[in-house]
Amino acid sequence: MRLLAPLSFVLALAPVVAHAQAPASYGATSPDGSIAIGFTTDNDGHAQYSITRKGKLLIAPSSLGFILSDGLPMLRGWTITGADTGKGDSTWEQPWGERRYVRDHYNEITVHFRQSKDWGERLMDVHVRLFDKGVGFRYELPKQAALSTMKIADELTEFNIAGKGTAWWIAGGEWNRYEQVYQKTPIDAVATAHTPITMRLEDGTHLSFHEAALVDYSAMWFKRAEGQKFRSTLSPSSQGPRVLRSLPFNTPWRTIRIGDKAADLVENDLELNLNEPNKIGDVSYFKPQKYIGIWWGMIRGDWTWAEGPRHGATTERAKQYIDFAAKHGFGSVLVEGWDKGWNGNWFGTGQDFSFTQATPDFDLKAVTAYAAKKGVGLIGHHETGGNIANYEAQLDDAMKLYDSLGVRAVKTGYVADMGGVQAPCAAEPAKICMEWHDGQRQVQHHLRVVQTAAKYHIAVNAHEPVKDTGLRRTYPNWIDREGARGMEYNAWGQFANGPSHEPTLVYTRLLSGPMDFTPGVLSLEGANHVPLASTLAKQLGLYLAIYSPIQMAADFIENLAAHPKELEFIRQVPADWSESHLIAGEVGEYALFARKDRAGEDWYVGGVNDATARDVTLDMDFLTAGKSYKATIYKDGEGATYLTDARHRIAYETRVVKKGDKLSLWLAPGGGAAIQLKLLK
Amino acid sequence: MRLLAPLSFVLALAPVVAHAQAPASYGATSPDGSIAIGFTTDNDGHAQYSITRKGKLLIAPSSLGFILSDGLPMLRGWTITGADTGKGDSTWEQPWGERRYVRDHYNEITVHFRQSKDWGERLMDVHVRLFDKGVGFRYELPKQAALSTMKIADELTEFNIAGKGTAWWIAGGEWNRYEQVYQKTPIDAVATAHTPITMRLEDGTHLSFHEAALVDYSAMWFKRAEGQKFRSTLSPSSQGPRVLRSLPFNTPWRTIRIGDKAADLVENDLELNLNEPNKIGDVSYFKPQKYIGIWWGMIRGDWTWAEGPRHGATTERAKQYIDFAAKHGFGSVLVEGWDKGWNGNWFGTGQDFSFTQATPDFDLKAVTAYAAKKGVGLIGHHETGGNIANYEAQLDDAMKLYDSLGVRAVKTGYVADMGGVQAPCAAEPAKICMEWHDGQRQVQHHLRVVQTAAKYHIAVNAHEPVKDTGLRRTYPNWIDREGARGMEYNAWGQFANGPSHEPTLVYTRLLSGPMDFTPGVLSLEGANHVPLASTLAKQLGLYLAIYSPIQMAADFIENLAAHPKELEFIRQVPADWSESHLIAGEVGEYALFARKDRAGEDWYVGGVNDATARDVTLDMDFLTAGKSYKATIYKDGEGATYLTDARHRIAYETRVVKKGDKLSLWLAPGGGAAIQLKLLK
Repeated sequence: MRLLAPLSFVLALAPVVAHAQAPASYGATSPDGSIAIGFTTDNDGHAQYSITRKGKLLIAPSSLGFILSDGLPMLRGWTITGADTGKGDSTWEQPWGERRYVRDHYNEITVHFRQSKDWGERLMDVHVRLFDKGVGFRYELPKQAALSTMKIADELTEFNIAGKGTAWWIAGGEWNRYEQVYQKTPIDAVATAHTPITMRLEDGTHLSFHEAALVDYSAMWFKRAEGQKFRSTLSPSSQGPRVLRSLPFNTPWRTIRIGDKAADLVENDLELNLNEPNKIGDVSYFKPQKYIGIWWGMIRGDWTWAEGPRHGATTERAKQYIDFAAKHGFGSVLVEGWDKGWNGNWFGTGQDFSFTQATPDFDLKAVTAYAAKKGVGLIGHHETGGNIANYEAQLDDAMKLYDSLGVRAVKTGYVADMGGVQAPCAAEPAKICMEWHDGQRQVQHHLRVVQTAAKYHIAVNAHEPVKDTGLRRTYPNWIDREGARGMEYNAWGQFANGPSHEPTLVYTRLLSGPMDFTPGVLSLEGANHVPLASTLAKQLGLYLAIYSPIQMAADFIENLAAHPKELEFIRQVPADWSESHLIAGEVGEYALFARKDRAGEDWYVGGVNDATARDVTLDMDFLTAGKSYKATIYKDGEGATYLTDARHRIAYETRVVKKGDKLSLWLAPGGGAAIQLKLLK
Repeated sequence: MRLLAPLSFVLALAPVVAHAQAPASYGATSPDGSIAIGFTTDNDGHAQYSITRKGKLLIAPSSLGFILSDGLPMLRGWTITGADTGKGDSTWEQPWGERRYVRDHYNEITVHFRQSKDWGERLMDVHVRLFDKGVGFRYELPKQAALSTMKIADELTEFNIAGKGTAWWIAGGEWNRYEQVYQKTPIDAVATAHTPITMRLEDGTHLSFHEAALVDYSAMWFKRAEGQKFRSTLSPSSQGPRVLRSLPFNTPWRTIRIGDKAADLVENDLELNLNEPNKIGDVSYFKPQKYIGIWWGMIRGDWTWAEGPRHGATTERAKQYIDFAAKHGFGSVLVEGWDKGWNGNWFGTGQDFSFTQATPDFDLKAVTAYAAKKGVGLIGHHETGGNIANYEAQLDDAMKLYDSLGVRAVKTGYVADMGGVQAPCAAEPAKICMEWHDGQRQVQHHLRVVQTAAKYHIAVNAHEPVKDTGLRRTYPNWIDREGARGMEYNAWGQFANGPSHEPTLVYTRLLSGPMDFTPGVLSLEGANHVPLASTLAKQLGLYLAIYSPIQMAADFIENLAAHPKELEFIRQVPADWSESHLIAGEVGEYALFARKDRAGEDWYVGGVNDATARDVTLDMDFLTAGKSYKATIYKDGEGATYLTDARHRIAYETRVVKKGDKLSLWLAPGGGAAIQLKLLK
């Protein structure tokens, strides 16, 4: 329905109307009426939106638009010509995930803008979906006479945050593997951030700004202009325009998760709902699982990726790891450094990598055959050093080889500096154009890898990736990404990931999607015996706190074997859930989840704590009424603390619990807990 | 001299040496030894520098380098192959300025870096000049086999500020005419700033970060990465690389003014000294002067730039203004809106502007002839609406016309949105490429305008300019720029420039060079009688606080005439000085200068205050011993305040003062003062 008059309910949006200079304003509300968006134009014809929640201004009037490399800015001279509204309420099923069923319940409005003759008579639609716990909007550029392609110099979408508060963020446009320690600052002390960026306003409102369905576009960085006003700036391109698209096309959704409490951010499927349904069909070739790998030894420096006397990826060691995996219920073994090209400097150069030729001391065919015999998979590995020219040239052959050997998952890698991705130039493919990790070209590349992998029934676990924007819904063989500071940093320095790191990741990076954090360093030490900022119980809690459909046990197998009780927990804990709930937690402090095994009736509870010891009381309300569960509890031992050798103190307990029970836990400094709740038949 | 061993004095740079991983470190100190810079490379071969002052770390190790659009990053794999040192001490004379003679006293070091084979074997020199009150360094890219052109995707120069403190800044990469109100925040709450950005550390150290000699390169924005670490990011280009240069070439200097007090920032010729000497010869065709204009009426909305019944630029009004100028000693009259092209929307479009054709109601030839007869000059006007394609096509004709009519100065204008400058594309000049106000293309354009103007003996006063980086030394017909929020904002809203604005400009924008602020609104009101955040005395104080070799009296001539005493001060006050000293002031609070008339022995004292009333006692130490001066004082009247009609209260006083006297002044809220000290013969 095309509305030619303002929607009556925008009359309730007093702050919007107060700013409106234009004759007509348009708006819409979430299904429960709590969130409202309004659109208007100001005296200069800037297209603007604002958002209220429960009648209170949340996003003050904020401008929309683009600057172009080849034509007048799409910033001024806009008028609203009308709007369409709609709504949706459906439930869809995930092949794997934190929950099996996802409800997609929204109202929507598409506001139609036209630029005046002076400004080129361009058309632009803004399509909004309002959910009870968030908003997404995107630009839709219809086919039009005035514009056939858009050379987008930058997207200038403002986010003018009305309330003061605190932000948790990492720097955008800097060291571009997202591998920084999160910063906690006032909102008005953010510099330029990657998304998702999490905020808590003084009135308790929790916010997370991000994007959904980042396809054939550059990633959005969240640049603070001044005060509390942010705007988008797109990851650069070697080509001038940061994005080049033919019309018609849609931008990614700009998303805001909104809620009263931290759990509203965590239990929120906003971005997934804004992505398109599965386009690749059945992905049952991928099984959620735990895995081990020939990896921690290279990270620590005991072994090497490169060939030589300390080469990690030997046939012999691979078989040893396969044996261990088979014995302890791990689904796969990751083998890094199996291929040629690691000798010399590969960081950011990568021209020598082969994705089909193994090193002389690694018999890929023999190893995969051995694994198959043992019922174990191999997780393949494609490190590119950021050289996607080299990778793309071999991509099909590389995936075909893995497919032929039954390898059903591959970990990719793009280790390079900012602006350090080498791609074939569009205009002259024999030349190299340097791109950013999260620019349009690399966004295209990642999807190409995932689509090629899908063709060969292979799942992709991307490291040094583009951030996740919910594309696993559309391409569910895209199972996992790194895209944050993982366990590996603990190998490189004492407390390199501080005790707050994981309880921050839960409310920031993890909002974007699964992370291959690689928990399970049960020895609690990195290279040169540097300790982790973690108790032993926290290592188990990570399997509940940080969701991934593949969960590593990262330590050396000898260290895993030295902890038989913990190893048994890791064997038992699922990597696929029918339900997930944050049952206790605050951003950056602690996070305890209850998750239900997708394969049965058992529940698992656990999570992580920061540096502050705390007592928590967990409500067992999520359990099925009338049933009893055997709780096997792994918790911080008395006096445990990450600060001393007492980090190894763990306590075990079993008891029977029922719905309505309360369970008290003491969480050590840097501690955690993990509980299996097995349904008693 | 090429040094093959570390300089012995870097041993004193303990923090540098502590971070050094490389075998050799190189460094140098300022002539007085207070400032030291050290260079090293880290384990990954990052080229790094650090700066200490009085033995204390000021800039912690900070990386240097570039990313390229067409080749591997110039970030890693560096080794230092040697260094050359040198020194200089000379004095040069300005044709006009805040002081006649400028001392250029420095030590210098050029550190030679070579990148390893993996990284392309590129060469890069870093050339540093150390002064007693600051440091400048630039990249020098020598002719080399590995690199013939540089397509610079970005320059990644870090500035890792060691001490906490306060910053005064405007947002970079945003609304790009620099016309924001300055923000005062903690250093670690800066977002991305334009330079100069001013800081005061907790230990009292004053800093200003800027650049010098911005030629054929993009302006540097000062992006905070996180914490107190900043890095350069260059203004974008439509072409992909933000800068495109053939080797050999030098970047602009990255500069840091350093001192113990605010005056050390203000009385500091760092950037001027880092620019090249005069390249255009005698500029005596330009006389420092005061001027009036047909301008405030358009700003207020009483008159229009466009033709029509309220057209400002009529022959009749121009003659009336010329008569007034002649009578009251003004050198010139600015006439805006004299040319065709103002009808319809010109903001950001500008395609209709003619720079040679006057409107029918304005007889350019008759007006200039009339002005000449009266001994008054005309200041021409070239508003482009950011359309430099249109302007460049007419540039030579436009300057030739003015020259033929004896017009010796032109005000240029580039009113457009960010990324809104329309330039002919380099590869295809018939097409339009959109550029930033401060990108390489616009930097080239401004210099082209200034060079063309010089050919015709015309001075340039650029509005919506690229920021000043001291190029007036090399091109002294580049007399002035806007590049900050000027008086005009006061026409548009009550206290639109708050009382702190001018006392902030002195220590921020004004550090970069002269500003056409356009003081002298003696009526103290804008459109619809909105009041200025200024007392009457402050309007006179502005002629001392804000330096420019052309100083407007911006008000309607009727309003000027209504204040005969103030008008007489404006007639008397010079716009050219042999000495200038900040004799009292703090950043953002107040600023009082003593300046000596370049044409004689008289001194002038005056300045501006923020919202806080204060008593200041000024030392008359700058006066010549044994001489007496007649002080004519214009000061805030009793009870004056910008907050009420009491803003008009002014007091006059005369007395005799000598060197060694103290002069007490009360500065009203939003007040100021102006004093003429006439040598008694």
